[in-house]
This record gives sequence, structure tokens and C-alpha cells, in this order.
Amino acid sequence: MESPLDVALNGVPHSSLSVLNRALHYGDGLFESLRVVQGQPIALALHLKRLRRGAELLQFSEEAISPLPIELDRFCQGRETGILKVILTRSAEQRGYRIPDKSDNQRVLFWYPDHTLSKEQYDEGVSVCRCRTLLPNQGPIAAVKSLNRLPQVMARSEWRDEAIYEGLMFNERYDVVEGTQSNLFLIVEEKVLTPNVDNYGIAGLMRERVMTQLQQWRVPLSVVTLQESDLLRATSMFLTNSLIGILPVRQYLQQRFSSHCLVQKLQSHFHPHMALPWRA
Amino acid sequence: MESPLDVALNGVPHSSLSVLNRALHYGDGLFESLRVVQGQPIALALHLKRLRRGAELLQFSEEAISPLPIELDRFCQGRETGILKVILTRSAEQRGYRIPDKSDNQRVLFWYPDHTLSKEQYDEGVSVCRCRTLLPNQGPIAAVKSLNRLPQVMARSEWRDEAIYEGLMFNERYDVVEGTQSNLFLIVEEKVLTPNVDNYGIAGLMRERVMTQLQQWRVPLSVVTLQESDLLRATSMFLTNSLIGILPVRQYLQQRFSSHCLVQKLQSHFHPHMALPWRA
Repeated sequence: MESPLDVALNGVPHSSLSVLNRALHYGDGLFESLRVVQGQPIALALHLKRLRRGAELLQFSEEAISPLPIELDRFCQGRETGILKVILTRSAEQRGYRIPDKSDNQRVLFWYPDHTLSKEQYDEGVSVCRCRTLLPNQGPIAAVKSLNRLPQVMARSEWRDEAIYEGLMFNERYDVVEGTQSNLFLIVEEKVLTPNVDNYGIAGLMRERVMTQLQQWRVPLSVVTLQESDLLRATSMFLTNSLIGILPVRQYLQQRFSSHCLVQKLQSHFHPHMALPWRA
Repeated sequence: MESPLDVALNGVPHSSLSVLNRALHYGDGLFESLRVVQGQPIALALHLKRLRRGAELLQFSEEAISPLPIELDRFCQGRETGILKVILTRSAEQRGYRIPDKSDNQRVLFWYPDHTLSKEQYDEGVSVCRCRTLLPNQGPIAAVKSLNRLPQVMARSEWRDEAIYEGLMFNERYDVVEGTQSNLFLIVEEKVLTPNVDNYGIAGLMRERVMTQLQQWRVPLSVVTLQESDLLRATSMFLTNSLIGILPVRQYLQQRFSSHCLVQKLQSHFHPHMALPWRA
């Protein structure tokens, strides 16, 4: 199959990968998805920092990552606005789970067209469903953006209704953790709550940036264990990730949420730099 | 990197794979490892049955699997004894977790040289360690041989001592579940016990064949929840999988296990057909 995208492997345009790649065999690798605006990746330093942390856990060598800043810079040059995906993985000749002493590191960069959320969705919010697939307790692996994404794949396969943008995922204690591809924030009695993601979910970079900004604005904020009943008593809800920015939720199950000035304030703060819609 | 192995992609010799492959992005796919003796895959029907069950869960189409028996037959023709790995995965142009309506199915067959356990190891047993990496509760996904294998990769990276053959993995309740690449059996007071693997581990085909055989021989057998204290009161222990057959354990931590005539009986029953060593 020909690739319709631009792809670079270790800095060189490429559309294929060795069959010895350990991502193919074990999902042994990491990824980051970045928003690129006029050739500039947004929050690149934060993404590289998280990738480095993951690489350490998965025992990639320093030289596996060090060429990445230059390769990314070259790959993004001259591009407009879109989505950059980085995959870090490795190949090895020997069979078996053991992380090889010597491996052939593979940095794969993908260029995708911009996603297609409308200004109306950013103003009015999107619909969200409940996923039955539970997030497994993955301990330290949960915190890194690994290529083991089957729980998300299974959760995303639970709905086909195009009117639903995202599904919320729970752990085995039925705590809500995150969306399949986004982090979750609630506003309950003028206080902002976001689920504790430890051992189950990704502490997203947009989540982190939002939390830092709320603290600067002195908005009451807590990272807490949340259950579905908490969702149903929220007045507002919004989703975050590095690609969508701040996206309000209009509806979860039968529950409707109102728009909140704080969501608009966050959009006004972050979206201009991300070339995303916001209500002026 | 050139492949040192024989590899076929959808029946055609190949050493590379599309970068759009969803195994690379999400670990979205399945695998089977088979022992091949003089060109004949052992227990092929059981492997295909399990692959089919996994393919159903991951929503592969029937046509993704149906060419496999013929492709396998051609691939194995004229080969000696060795290891066959089958990977079933798919490519798709669109970004995102959602399982695509239309995808480019990819069956990848790998030929590896036979593994190198000695007759002495089959007679005297191997050493086994305890892994700190816990097996996550993956619900129904745990039962299929998916390409999400990071827990096993992390567990296998915990030891480098070549004298240790396998590591035992526990779940978050500290029940012992399986080895990184094998199932576990204990003999406690002349009764055979094997851990319940539901939601955490693979119910291996060799495990299933051993259980069936023990029942035919009217040997008392139970599938139970086991903790480390149970391991330490066992008189004998052995590991199974489709590649190693029946492999006795000589030592776990400071505990030593004696050989048991039942292990030799199982080896004598299964190993001749698998071209593996056994004590006559």
C-alpha cells in the first residue's frame, strides 16, 4: 500500500519499515502527537521531555532520541498547519521479549492533515459516550505514551455514531480516568476537577498546561478520584489534548452541560497560538 | 536492516511493512508461535482456532484469516525443524484508534531457527526468577495473543543472568499467573495445580493439551488462584508452551524442586512428536 502521507524514517523519506521492528512484534515503542502551526510544533520541548522520560523507562539509548530535534526541524520546514506524529521504536534480529543490547533505533515522523472540528463544536461542545472497555492498571507503563493501545482501540470500536466525538474510559474500580484520546475536566460548584490518572491514563501535556494556567489565575483546582455520579453533578465539562486544545462537552449520556466562561477563557488563552477556533 | 530470516507478507517473500500498519501504531494485531517439525506445524488446528477467536474480538474480517492455511502450508514446505511465528495485523490510511471499515490485512510469517535448550535442561530443570512487573487486568483482551506485549518486555528486562531461563509474573493481588512466555504447573502433595489465568494471562495451547492428557490419565488436577507461598510448598514445578513443550523447574528463588515422574511421563508423551529431548 502506498502511503498518502509524508513519512520520514530516521530523517529520510520512507514508506516502509523492517519486519524485525519490535513495535510490530510487541508494541515496544513510544509516540507523541503534536500540533504544528505554520511549520512550528506547539510545545515541542514538553513533548520531547515526555518522550525522553518514556524512552528511559523502555531503556532506549540516548542516541535513539538525540537526532530527533534536528530531524523534526527539517521535517516541519515549509509546512502549513497540521499534525505531526512521532514514533520511537527499534528493530532487533533475535526473537523474544528481552530488550536487545544492540538494536536498530527507528524514529518515524508522520505528517497528517489538520483535524476537522468546527467552530460550532468549539463553541457549543461535543457529545461524549461511556465506554465499557476498562483501562488496565499498567503501573509505570501507563504514564508513558507507549504503542500498547489496544484498550483504546477496543473502546473506540464501541461506537459508530458520527455525532459522538469521544468516549470516557473507566478503570476496574469504575473511577473515570480519561477519554480514549483526551483528558477530562469538570466544573463542579465553580471548582475545577480532573481525574487522577496514575497507573491508568496519560497525564496529557495540554492537561498539564491547563492546570498550570488555572493555578496562575487562582482558580480552585483538584486532581481527584471521580466516579460517574460526579460527572452527573457537574455543570460543565471539557476535554483537552495537544491536538484539539480545549473542547467543551455538551452532552454525556442523558446529561447536558452548559457552557462556562472559564472554558472560553482557556480557549482564548491557548487557541490563538494553536490556530484553533475560539469565541472572541 | 536486512532480515536474516525468511519472512512472507500475505504469501510473498518480504522484509518490510507499510508505515501505516496498525501494529506499529497501536499494537493492533495478533500472533501465534508454532513449533515446526520436518515442515509440519505442531497442533496447527489449535493455533488457527485461537487466532480466529482473537481475530473475532479484534474485529478482523473472515478474509483476513482465510488465506492463512494455504500460505502456511507453502511457507513450511521443504523446511526442517524450527519456529514459525504468525502475525496478523492491518494497515489503514486514516489516523486514530477506530478500527477501520476497510483495511489492508497483513499476514506476516516468520521462520526462526530452533531454540537451544539442552537435554540436560529438560532432564534437570531450569532456574526461574520473580518479576516485579505486574500483569495488568486486561479483561477479554488478556485471553488473546495480542501484540500489546510491553508488560512481558518490561518483565523480561528485569534479569540479565543467562542462568535464569524464565521469570514468573504476578497480578496486582500478587496471584502468580504465568511466566513471561510460558504457563506454569505445580505438583503439591501429588496433585497438579495450574494458575487461573483469566483476565491476566494466556491459556496456552500446550497448557490445554497437558490438562487434557492429565485428565485422561486420571491425575488430580485443579485450576486455582495461587500465591507465592503455594510455589514454595510445591515439590515439583514445570513450564509449558508450544515451543518448549514440558520444561521442569529446578529452582525458584532459594527454593529447589525435585524431578517428578509425572513430568517425565508428560515429556515422553509429547516430546517425540515435537522433536524435543526427553528422558527415555
